[in-house]
Amino acid sequence: MKPINEEKFKKIIDFLTEHAIDFLLISDYENANDVNMQYLTGHPMDATVIVTQKGETYLVPWDVALAQKYAEVDEIFDLMNYEHSQIKFLHTFIEEKIQKHKVTVGLNSSTSFGSLVMFKKAIPHMEIFQEPMLISNLLGDLRTTKSAAELELLREAANIGNQTIPEIENFAMNATDETENDLDFFVRKKMASLGAEDVAFPTLVGSSTRAHNIHCHPSASNAKFATPGLALIDFGAKYKGYHSDITVPISFGELTAEQTKIRDLTQKAYDAAMEILDIGVPLWKVHEAAIKVIQEGGYNMPHSLGHGLGLATHDAPHLGSKPTNPIALQYWKETKAQNGMVFTIEPGVYKEGLGGQRLENDVIIWNDRVEVITKSRFITVL
Amino acid sequence: MKPINEEKFKKIIDFLTEHAIDFLLISDYENANDVNMQYLTGHPMDATVIVTQKGETYLVPWDVALAQKYAEVDEIFDLMNYEHSQIKFLHTFIEEKIQKHKVTVGLNSSTSFGSLVMFKKAIPHMEIFQEPMLISNLLGDLRTTKSAAELELLREAANIGNQTIPEIENFAMNATDETENDLDFFVRKKMASLGAEDVAFPTLVGSSTRAHNIHCHPSASNAKFATPGLALIDFGAKYKGYHSDITVPISFGELTAEQTKIRDLTQKAYDAAMEILDIGVPLWKVHEAAIKVIQEGGYNMPHSLGHGLGLATHDAPHLGSKPTNPIALQYWKETKAQNGMVFTIEPGVYKEGLGGQRLENDVIIWNDRVEVITKSRFITVL
Repeated sequence: MKPINEEKFKKIIDFLTEHAIDFLLISDYENANDVNMQYLTGHPMDATVIVTQKGETYLVPWDVALAQKYAEVDEIFDLMNYEHSQIKFLHTFIEEKIQKHKVTVGLNSSTSFGSLVMFKKAIPHMEIFQEPMLISNLLGDLRTTKSAAELELLREAANIGNQTIPEIENFAMNATDETENDLDFFVRKKMASLGAEDVAFPTLVGSSTRAHNIHCHPSASNAKFATPGLALIDFGAKYKGYHSDITVPISFGELTAEQTKIRDLTQKAYDAAMEILDIGVPLWKVHEAAIKVIQEGGYNMPHSLGHGLGLATHDAPHLGSKPTNPIALQYWKETKAQNGMVFTIEPGVYKEGLGGQRLENDVIIWNDRVEVITKSRFITVL
Repeated sequence: MKPINEEKFKKIIDFLTEHAIDFLLISDYENANDVNMQYLTGHPMDATVIVTQKGETYLVPWDVALAQKYAEVDEIFDLMNYEHSQIKFLHTFIEEKIQKHKVTVGLNSSTSFGSLVMFKKAIPHMEIFQEPMLISNLLGDLRTTKSAAELELLREAANIGNQTIPEIENFAMNATDETENDLDFFVRKKMASLGAEDVAFPTLVGSSTRAHNIHCHPSASNAKFATPGLALIDFGAKYKGYHSDITVPISFGELTAEQTKIRDLTQKAYDAAMEILDIGVPLWKVHEAAIKVIQEGGYNMPHSLGHGLGLATHDAPHLGSKPTNPIALQYWKETKAQNGMVFTIEPGVYKEGLGGQRLENDVIIWNDRVEVITKSRFITVL
């Protein structure tokens, strides 16, 4: 399935026309990922997509066999026919498909400095559109709202996660010497049996000795999971390319006053975010509502409140603070909650020695209402 | 452990001095990974490192607690003190630490177009060195050879993989309805029990119906593994940050003449590469030796012969063809096999309907000789 629909694709063509860009070129490779390649073609990874102002789409994949199976494009090119050289391919492509002496290319903001220099030197008749943020903002806007078909897949990814939560509770209730790795394997296997094609991201399993890290490293270890204090597991399922993302906060044993306060603050921050969240509310205000509670409680929240879910675990929109820097502000656009959005709400409070708590659920906005589609909750093991 | 040593670090300072670059700035984030950040600091992920011409190192991490545990730098900065703004931080940093009105920054070729534009607009007194490929080439050169301490970790990662190969053979010999996912879990669990902190990359398990893809997608599925024809498993261990990478080719049942030919060609290409590989031999010639065998046999090899191993699964050096494009050639440097290198040799032949075979082992060059440190081999299940 090619995720983008005709109506959204038309907006890209309009943008290219408005800015006199002959074609858009987006690459997605290891170490330089750009989910827009998959969004525009259905091809999962390792490829360059070209969209022309005329509305044609072309793909240059690393694995042609894979592209023949997944990509919905007008033509697939095999770099083997161009001595494995992107540059040689582009020269030919411009000559044969664009047929102009001077061309303007649109590159996404994810394009590497190395590629820019190479393009400038090797294809001097290709001018580069100098506002890549307008391109990433446009594509981010399109991905911010999901189609009905995408929402179905996101719901299924959430359901796989939901069915795993009681199993996690059961694991925690009965844990003695089991390790973080044991829980990692357990969750991975459970989700695969429920139809997940993979985990959405490496499961973060933080016992109370490690949960003060926002993202513990390594993501799971051979440390015992059931140690007294505040622990958490942050996991999700990948289903037909779409992601869920859930954090379950778990406490072991009697808590100190401060540990109880950390739990309460996390819950209150979550409640404050859900209280304000509604159609038309700017997302930065939802972030602010949660962080205010935590700051007033005497802690900091060292991360944003949430992020969109889609083909990427971290998709558009972003639920963070409004930038203060004037240049960053110039490219920033206020995003309001609207139908078709899917994102996480995940406030957290952390303190070394005590552990960390993060309560994370996924929400869909649809039919003018906010629906929480995952079922995370605080789990207490005495 | 900070992987880079004093002697290599000195080469960076010399480079900055030679090109009048006041400081080097390298970022490693999700979707835009740059292993050089970890190489320069020991910090595993999600941070920006700055190296000044005077030889000071500074880190701006996403997770300060994690950095306090891992980073070996002169100072760690918390973006919370700069309103979460990299721009605001950089303004202050330049004023307080560089103390010049006009500064020149070196950015690696992995830097995003978006960051470049932002830097130019928001910090106009910061000039950007316009040859990022020289920086990535320098850092790649440094990472091309490993220290004795790094080699020990790479050997251990290889050993964990080696101990898993007989288990894979046993799995394959006894497989009936077991799925690719079953083998994936089995290998993951085995390696964790042997001390791996994680898999080096998502294990690719291709039954004969999927093994014609270079990297099958999804990496493992609920398809039955033991189907007649040519299958493979491509896996590795991550041990204290360092990676191994092994592909075991497995055949099930009686093979057709063409399937036997594919196996033989893979073995011959591997042998041809090992035959020519020696101290001082240019690595592109090793690639050519293998690919020539496959092409003369009537097939193509749709990927490079191998890649370095280190903190990244795909590290320096690269074993691929010599570029034909003159601009690419301008930045390309012939790399010869030398002491301290660790890389894969992994020729493969693929055909839809028949499956695919890839034989991949890891080699170390040390004391002027080539040592194969992994033990992959063809496995035949009748």
